[in-house]
Amino acid sequence: MSDRIYNFGAGPAVLPEPVLRQAQQDLWNIGGSGIGIAEHSHRGKVFERVINEAEEACRSLANIPADYRVLFLQGGASLQFAMVPLNLLPEDRTADYLVTGVWSEKAVKEARAVGTVHEAASGKACKFTRIPPADEIRYSADPVYVHFTSNNTIYGSQWRTEPVPPAGVPLIVDASSDIFSRPIDVAKYGLIYAGAQKNLGPSGAVLVIIRDDLVEAGDKNLPVILQYRTFAQEKSLYNTPNTFGIYMMGRVFNWIRELGGLGAMAEHNERKAKLLYDYLDQSRLFTCQVERSSRSLMNVCFRGPNEEVENRFIAEAAKRGLDGLKGHRSAGGMRASLYNACPIEGVKALVEFLWEFEKKELGAGS
Amino acid sequence: MSDRIYNFGAGPAVLPEPVLRQAQQDLWNIGGSGIGIAEHSHRGKVFERVINEAEEACRSLANIPADYRVLFLQGGASLQFAMVPLNLLPEDRTADYLVTGVWSEKAVKEARAVGTVHEAASGKACKFTRIPPADEIRYSADPVYVHFTSNNTIYGSQWRTEPVPPAGVPLIVDASSDIFSRPIDVAKYGLIYAGAQKNLGPSGAVLVIIRDDLVEAGDKNLPVILQYRTFAQEKSLYNTPNTFGIYMMGRVFNWIRELGGLGAMAEHNERKAKLLYDYLDQSRLFTCQVERSSRSLMNVCFRGPNEEVENRFIAEAAKRGLDGLKGHRSAGGMRASLYNACPIEGVKALVEFLWEFEKKELGAGS
Repeated sequence: MSDRIYNFGAGPAVLPEPVLRQAQQDLWNIGGSGIGIAEHSHRGKVFERVINEAEEACRSLANIPADYRVLFLQGGASLQFAMVPLNLLPEDRTADYLVTGVWSEKAVKEARAVGTVHEAASGKACKFTRIPPADEIRYSADPVYVHFTSNNTIYGSQWRTEPVPPAGVPLIVDASSDIFSRPIDVAKYGLIYAGAQKNLGPSGAVLVIIRDDLVEAGDKNLPVILQYRTFAQEKSLYNTPNTFGIYMMGRVFNWIRELGGLGAMAEHNERKAKLLYDYLDQSRLFTCQVERSSRSLMNVCFRGPNEEVENRFIAEAAKRGLDGLKGHRSAGGMRASLYNACPIEGVKALVEFLWEFEKKELGAGS
Repeated sequence: MSDRIYNFGAGPAVLPEPVLRQAQQDLWNIGGSGIGIAEHSHRGKVFERVINEAEEACRSLANIPADYRVLFLQGGASLQFAMVPLNLLPEDRTADYLVTGVWSEKAVKEARAVGTVHEAASGKACKFTRIPPADEIRYSADPVYVHFTSNNTIYGSQWRTEPVPPAGVPLIVDASSDIFSRPIDVAKYGLIYAGAQKNLGPSGAVLVIIRDDLVEAGDKNLPVILQYRTFAQEKSLYNTPNTFGIYMMGRVFNWIRELGGLGAMAEHNERKAKLLYDYLDQSRLFTCQVERSSRSLMNVCFRGPNEEVENRFIAEAAKRGLDGLKGHRSAGGMRASLYNACPIEGVKALVEFLWEFEKKELGAGS
């Protein structure tokens, strides 16, 4: 019997158990080197293999074209909110942002510290309960790029497919909370970035996939550490990277590959989300307020009849080993995060407990 | 018998074995929570305790005064090379830098992208084999701050005590490679920063100790993620930090505390360095080119009679389980890094092997 419980937290989130087991060993002594993974020089042979294998696995998983660089950076997606405009938004140009939640808003805020921002769509008026349909998007005359957030952890909404930018305009995505949860057509993007701590690994590591022309489009007057070209030229080793984070991402990429790749991952994630949404759609106690076509497969947000019931549900679930179900403080209610590493058994146990709680609750009220 | 070898690498470097053993357990399930340390929300109770305990241990180790913030950031010391001037060097002011090696030079380069830099001293002419004495330092008329690098990993030199800046001018130090290897009088500094990967933990985490007035002196027009005040206000949790890195730093702080604190650590490090320098000073085969008063207790750099002998020494040492002895590619020769977690047994084994190698070598040549 395992001493671990089901973790539905939004991030840092559950990691695959086989990856954790291997990491336990490798922290002490990786590959018989007599030195743990966190203690190896980032310029030594052992880590060189680790980062090369991580990049290779990443490229193979997402069929990344040859004219894209794969970079392993630090600072979280939040540093990318700044690096993207610092590199790619000249003073005399406008960048278009599609605003679908708090994280998009933060990206906008950082871009406004650098240059001109046009909000080409915003879900704020309807409290971010839906992704804007294509006919509601109003791009500016000549945007330098279009930025969107593929999945909104706080509100539980997700783009089904990427928005279509004006012809020739690079599409940039913050994919932190759904990266590699389904296939992605990298060629449609100019730049993809994602904090690792939901689907890819521990926090403190960021994956950036950037097309060569955007690497070179970056402002050369910036501090070196804020330029994409610095990391592209040095293959992510300009300075000491988060070596343990990169190691873990590599192991997670391999784990996804062994399970069949991004297509298999999408099926696995759809199955899990369907179990929970199917329950919610017929529940007489709980409701999901996100529009059906905009629902996230990663973060299922739902509400009870009132806060008292919600808090009781969350507390009782925790006692059953169903943890991390409290919604974000700005949204309230409940949230079950069903990232790649969340096992279907956990979702089954959650749905079972939802049934049980509802029955008791409605029975008690009748 | 341990399956680990002696690791003299310059960083990421050896970590304390008791910390690694605990981390192996906590990666799977920390404190009976049923969830691993890398999978806990940075806003949950378990991690809140981890970061609070890390800060408390850090403050207690270094007697950090109440008007200093302790921040756990990302991006390495290299991001601090940029953040320091971005926050603290206004366009119309000059910052003074004491240049004692490659890392100081990189800090200068980033500062020049922001404002005016005056090199108040430079060891470049004598190939960085010594730390400039006080009477060689020429500060500018009114520097906004004075920046130095306390230990130079590549050349094996170290400031015995901190330089004295002009009255009222904040002293800023990159202490990445000797932080907490000896007592530090925090009150003498405006800002101390250090990448974790030598003395404090794994790479990808940075410790910043900053005086309150400098937090507030920072430029408010910068992107939020590049302002110190952002992290000071949010107690390092503006965005998701490197949670595993912070956990490890906390464990290392505790490990230092259990061994007696920074004073005990200084004695331990002096003992280790003395063993090696004493050998080198009488050796007929190997030499240390750093001036005695400038020698680093952290990185002992030495040369053999020629590259062939050096390479043979490094290869044979590795076969004996003495790893990471190759000097930095820009300096050549050998380098033994003797950070806090390097055990004295490792240094004894190294000195023993040096004797043996020298005897064989000179015997063979006679």
